[in-house]
Amino acid sequence: MRALRALRSRRFQAMAAAAAAGGARRGRVLNPETMNPAIRRVQYAVRGPIVSRALEIEQELREGVPKPFTEVIKANIGDAHAMGQQPITFLRQVTALCLCPELMKDPSLPSDAKERAQRLLEACGGRSVGSYSASPGVPMVRENVARYIERRDGVPSKAEDIFLSTGASDAIVNILKLLVSGSGSSRTGVLIPIPQYPLYSAALAELEAVQLGYFLAEERCWALDVAELRRALAEGRRRCCPRVLCIINPGNPTGQVQSRECIEAVIKFAYEEKLFLMADEVYQDNVYAEGSAFHSFKKVLMELGPPYSEEVELASFHSISKGFMGECGLRGGYMEVVNMNPEVKAELSKLVSVRLCPPVLGQMILDTVMDPPKPGEPSYERFQAEKKAVLGALAEKARLTQEIFNRTPGIHCNPVQGAMYSFPRIDLPPRALAAAKENKQAPDMFFCMRLLEETGICVIPGSGFGQKEGTFHFRMTILPPAEKLKNLLEQLSSFYTKFVTEFS
Amino acid sequence: MRALRALRSRRFQAMAAAAAAGGARRGRVLNPETMNPAIRRVQYAVRGPIVSRALEIEQELREGVPKPFTEVIKANIGDAHAMGQQPITFLRQVTALCLCPELMKDPSLPSDAKERAQRLLEACGGRSVGSYSASPGVPMVRENVARYIERRDGVPSKAEDIFLSTGASDAIVNILKLLVSGSGSSRTGVLIPIPQYPLYSAALAELEAVQLGYFLAEERCWALDVAELRRALAEGRRRCCPRVLCIINPGNPTGQVQSRECIEAVIKFAYEEKLFLMADEVYQDNVYAEGSAFHSFKKVLMELGPPYSEEVELASFHSISKGFMGECGLRGGYMEVVNMNPEVKAELSKLVSVRLCPPVLGQMILDTVMDPPKPGEPSYERFQAEKKAVLGALAEKARLTQEIFNRTPGIHCNPVQGAMYSFPRIDLPPRALAAAKENKQAPDMFFCMRLLEETGICVIPGSGFGQKEGTFHFRMTILPPAEKLKNLLEQLSSFYTKFVTEFS
Repeated sequence: MRALRALRSRRFQAMAAAAAAGGARRGRVLNPETMNPAIRRVQYAVRGPIVSRALEIEQELREGVPKPFTEVIKANIGDAHAMGQQPITFLRQVTALCLCPELMKDPSLPSDAKERAQRLLEACGGRSVGSYSASPGVPMVRENVARYIERRDGVPSKAEDIFLSTGASDAIVNILKLLVSGSGSSRTGVLIPIPQYPLYSAALAELEAVQLGYFLAEERCWALDVAELRRALAEGRRRCCPRVLCIINPGNPTGQVQSRECIEAVIKFAYEEKLFLMADEVYQDNVYAEGSAFHSFKKVLMELGPPYSEEVELASFHSISKGFMGECGLRGGYMEVVNMNPEVKAELSKLVSVRLCPPVLGQMILDTVMDPPKPGEPSYERFQAEKKAVLGALAEKARLTQEIFNRTPGIHCNPVQGAMYSFPRIDLPPRALAAAKENKQAPDMFFCMRLLEETGICVIPGSGFGQKEGTFHFRMTILPPAEKLKNLLEQLSSFYTKFVTEFS
Repeated sequence: MRALRALRSRRFQAMAAAAAAGGARRGRVLNPETMNPAIRRVQYAVRGPIVSRALEIEQELREGVPKPFTEVIKANIGDAHAMGQQPITFLRQVTALCLCPELMKDPSLPSDAKERAQRLLEACGGRSVGSYSASPGVPMVRENVARYIERRDGVPSKAEDIFLSTGASDAIVNILKLLVSGSGSSRTGVLIPIPQYPLYSAALAELEAVQLGYFLAEERCWALDVAELRRALAEGRRRCCPRVLCIINPGNPTGQVQSRECIEAVIKFAYEEKLFLMADEVYQDNVYAEGSAFHSFKKVLMELGPPYSEEVELASFHSISKGFMGECGLRGGYMEVVNMNPEVKAELSKLVSVRLCPPVLGQMILDTVMDPPKPGEPSYERFQAEKKAVLGALAEKARLTQEIFNRTPGIHCNPVQGAMYSFPRIDLPPRALAAAKENKQAPDMFFCMRLLEETGICVIPGSGFGQKEGTFHFRMTILPPAEKLKNLLEQLSSFYTKFVTEFS
């Protein structure tokens, strides 16, 4: 009798749970079985399970759950302001004035910010940033982007080839949407670096394109090797139709800065193999290492001359989220398309028009970055000082990261030549691999989860970016303030040593 | 000899032209033949060929080309600020303060705007709107959206069911991405109204879903008729797997406001036929006609009680671009999901995380709209007065539109009960249809192009939204200032009469 009651009670509980879990009574129209399987296959490690756990731990800390640390440090994402980097004043003044033109009478705001805001407002419908802009962006801003590229590269750029975007991600996905077609063995294959920024793998999964990884050479500071490109392409040709080559320079998560020679070789390879080039150059202002310099694919392509300069198709991407600005939340960016077929460019224009326009304030910020205060203007000194301070601090933190990690036996960190991340390799003992397997986790996920639980430091396992089999890494930003970063690096190194001892 | 030279010269010109047109020498990797055919099929009339021509004409006017008018009036798009509508001060003050916290010391800004900005900044990483937010939005804003919905509907709403977005379009496309799957006759079919807002047809073309149109009843003020839904569904079941029903209420482009009875019938239909409901409610604040009131699908669904309230799956969409705000350029909005399978909701969270976050300032504006100044607070009176002025003017212009159009024989305009558009039917004489055919244009495109060339008025032909075969319409916004709108309506009516006479 008691057993029956218990059984009934269990059955009732199961029913209640099913109802609570979303009404299992007749099943949902949209459920894991019926939903788009391509979306299920999407992975995005930068905001994946480890970040969910970090948010839970933050909540637990707020609720007073005792932990061996007092705060979670989110070193998982290139989110500069969240780590305390200060916004550049001129950028913010101009956008605030655009939003609230009644501030034109505020005497504390400089005249060049007011003039810029006036000019930008004149370029907006009804003189309001609340109007839609043209879908590829405000013409004045596109023009300023083209002038910026000309100054950067010393080769011509046309406003009609510039498409403003909602961050770089938006533009990257739009170009991929145009490129991916075919089915079976004629499906478009896209070459991406391994390790890669997981936007690429996520977008390719969503678009059901074939991902073709080429490995960067860790032993040569993550250099790109054309022989490896060739291997990946040949392998890809056996199962799909490779048509696109993606480059991330400076590298994310790997931080390398490509040499001019390397870029030339990649362009020649793309020409020979008929590949469309996508150059993710969002970290172009973030170059720290002595002897490293940023060379844009556009500049190198144009300087190579014909046939390359006339025939190699290129889309290059930039963003206001990185550099010295770090304006991630504003969602601004642009792409420049080079040698794009005019009919395809018209299709791109149509495609972006369906989403109406990129956020107008992101466009305004982009304008101030492309066309910053000039010598003699009231905001010039402050702008330069703020920019220099941010980039100087990042360079110092890049150096610090490499130095502290490499002190620890078992951690191997390439120089952070550019971008905002270190991507050190960690040796993991066999017993740690066995423990991870038991936990049904990738070994570096197992390590990073333990790190998070014991120290509050949130970094992303290398398996989220891709890595050579049998090697293990994590990505950590260099963004926390120097003193804090130093502590983090030391804490992380000691945790690693302890972890290795535990599993030896 | 001369002939040879001429031939050579022509050949050279052809080569140069080919090179200029994008280097035809060896063909592009990405060209109209190789590009994604789904993107080629996308159409978006609101920014289509007629708008391109309008932009060209504006350029011609600037260059001094003589025209029978002095400016192009873009009545093609719901872009309130571009038509002179003033932004709501409180919204702008709060966002400017968020961007530029040094303005906290500006005595001209009210204290409640400063307090709100402080609270919003505290909810941002590093107290900066330049930080990424959580992917579904800033928790405080999601919470305020849920409270707003509860006040609006009198039924519970949970912050975890709210996903902030980059305008409503972004959220609509994300839900469709989850829903569309299968191939051949098991491909997902999506019921959309005809006439529709062309975001729907564009997204369905891109996702290669099957579009199933149900006609709104023009003769009954564009009412939705469940018998017609049933017909469209039965027809759809013969060729695909219909799983989704999209509703636009208040209607775009049709301006009708659905009755509570109609919404109840639609919900019951969705329940019986196992359809996922998508309710596009971005015009919920734009209801003008006496006797019309906005009823949210969520409220009606919850009030219907079980089984509907527990089993019908719904996503409803809202935006800061419409209503009294008209903040199109800020790209903000939200969706609420109801009865969504928890695993699918986790997939939705993952999907939105790939694009990092919606524009943070759009989220801030949304917060001020969801939680406006309260009686007694410094900004209350001004906020209310501005809101009332905008909505009052729109109501007056809705009335004016209907009145003036219906004075003209051959133009038939339903009452603009809500939203921001009229969608009048125009009778076109057989000779006009023949002339359009000769021009390879849809008859209403032919009419609208002629209208644009002769008067500078830019409206969108009904063929861009869909309409019953043999009927012709255009969509025109009610947004220009009242005096200007009156002139436009009169000009348009006279042009129509002249046009009909010309082709009779």
